[in-house]
Amino acid sequence: MSQTEFQIIQQHFADSEAAFSRPEIVRGIGDDAATLRIAPDQILSFSMDVLVADVHFPATADPELIANRALAVNLSDLAAVGAEPLCFTLGLTLPLVNEHWLAAFSQGLVPLARQYNCPLVGGDLSRGPLNIAIQVQGQGEAVIGRDGARDGDLIYVSACLGDSVLALASFGLDTHLGTDFKIDSATLSDQDRAYLNEAYYRPQPRIEFGRQLLNVASAAIDISDGLLGDLGHICNASAVGADLDLTALPLSDCLASHLPEALQQQAALLGGDDYELCVTVAPENAKQLEAIAGGLGLQLSRIGTIRDGYGINCRDSKGQLQEFDASAYQHFGESE
Amino acid sequence: MSQTEFQIIQQHFADSEAAFSRPEIVRGIGDDAATLRIAPDQILSFSMDVLVADVHFPATADPELIANRALAVNLSDLAAVGAEPLCFTLGLTLPLVNEHWLAAFSQGLVPLARQYNCPLVGGDLSRGPLNIAIQVQGQGEAVIGRDGARDGDLIYVSACLGDSVLALASFGLDTHLGTDFKIDSATLSDQDRAYLNEAYYRPQPRIEFGRQLLNVASAAIDISDGLLGDLGHICNASAVGADLDLTALPLSDCLASHLPEALQQQAALLGGDDYELCVTVAPENAKQLEAIAGGLGLQLSRIGTIRDGYGINCRDSKGQLQEFDASAYQHFGESE
Repeated sequence: MSQTEFQIIQQHFADSEAAFSRPEIVRGIGDDAATLRIAPDQILSFSMDVLVADVHFPATADPELIANRALAVNLSDLAAVGAEPLCFTLGLTLPLVNEHWLAAFSQGLVPLARQYNCPLVGGDLSRGPLNIAIQVQGQGEAVIGRDGARDGDLIYVSACLGDSVLALASFGLDTHLGTDFKIDSATLSDQDRAYLNEAYYRPQPRIEFGRQLLNVASAAIDISDGLLGDLGHICNASAVGADLDLTALPLSDCLASHLPEALQQQAALLGGDDYELCVTVAPENAKQLEAIAGGLGLQLSRIGTIRDGYGINCRDSKGQLQEFDASAYQHFGESE
Repeated sequence: MSQTEFQIIQQHFADSEAAFSRPEIVRGIGDDAATLRIAPDQILSFSMDVLVADVHFPATADPELIANRALAVNLSDLAAVGAEPLCFTLGLTLPLVNEHWLAAFSQGLVPLARQYNCPLVGGDLSRGPLNIAIQVQGQGEAVIGRDGARDGDLIYVSACLGDSVLALASFGLDTHLGTDFKIDSATLSDQDRAYLNEAYYRPQPRIEFGRQLLNVASAAIDISDGLLGDLGHICNASAVGADLDLTALPLSDCLASHLPEALQQQAALLGGDDYELCVTVAPENAKQLEAIAGGLGLQLSRIGTIRDGYGINCRDSKGQLQEFDASAYQHFGESE
């Protein structure tokens, strides 16, 4: 029997006796970030992500890029709840001391830390297989949840989807989309390679966008598991369904030119690691949402509509329903 | 060239451009817990510790005990700064899904979480070599630092020292005290084994003691690196030296009966992983400190005195200076 990460977290942690409630907890396990209200107008947000060598990145990858990505994916979780970054901590496990590696890794943390005024304040260093745990702390007066989407709300997504999983395939790593999802690296131009490298290692946490979404969006999530999975989390938390327009999925030129249409859609819907925001908004707030993105110079695509009911329906250019099985790609190792 | 963990952290992280200051930061990298003042009367504390299989515990160890220890060592860092636990996050990397392991691990988090009202609120689950990153969040109106020790202050330590490294040796794991530090496991009674197992896997975070030390102690630290190393951190931060009385080191009957005297002192001074508190206190507050420990039923030993100057002098029963080289045991792998 194989289980998904979500099933394991639900059964062994979210439903665990260790995850009891305290009055301060606004959102606990299962949201992008844990949020606690510690004063009437003060909410703290915590997000931890772990990156493992040869699972999340090739062990031989440029340590500066690994560091950048590790911090970026955590900041993205803060963006999804609309929090302002406060500081981060680092739990680094590494097999041996390589001065060059350490210097480059450390340097790779600087740009995003500076950009979002989010300094390194502590952590732990251990010997062992390369493993990077980062936790970011954020603060704010409110948070955007996953549970506010309502019938008729419009669904938007920032920038492009699917490039990250295409990048993984181009690195020769397992993409979790099965053996059919592959790319002949030889067909990639230097420009394509550089683009995919940036897409994978330098995702842009949408911090400013998230901050401005407070009181505008009805729900938001960052796309780490793939659009279908993450929009599914919004739908489950909000007890609604969704209709998606496959022709509206925002795809990069690189992705569109290197994958057949079916795989393009798989990448955009199931690829994950995009770290763009998926946002739902009441129709009367749509203009304001578009103006926020416009003000930030951020591409924003309207990709569907929230409806009462259950499940996510994906329709192609002919209005035909297309099936995509997200759960087929979420196995987590094998049970003993 | 080998480097200590402290040198690596100092060079590549504490002195890194990523560890810049923000006005909120009270204590950053290098203290037991990072502390940030986010409101005039509100200080947040964050402590992250990573436990790696076959480095910090045998991979085959009881998952309930591993979980207990992972949470305990983090809570101990909060105890050292006098913070009240708020919640914790867990970054768990594990090679495959074993239902029994996960259930026992999850259950192992419950007792301390409940005891200290510190629920699990989030984290991350990844596939990879077994690695456990826990971060605890704490809060309070003030913190105890490492930099307040002054000439003439008395030095105290809670409970017993050295049992944890003796336990490691009894498990057959590398103790970092060199090949001379060993124990013939066959000489241990079942009671001894049970005692050492508890000492290693169930350290008691001195949360209540730490809370009551605010405004009483001049400095405090939890003993994770060994008494000499950790008291050394207090001395460095406070720009003072210390005199230690080797005859006053608190040793368990188990340790005293299974190690020759020289190794007893090594274990107590350099062993580490004790998670007891080392506290300095002005002489006029000593009675209050002893009363606090008495009220909690906690053994407290006066082991020395802070003095102006530099370094820690250890004197034996004849008043002779004894040398212990802490740095000899702090190598972190090998540089390339």
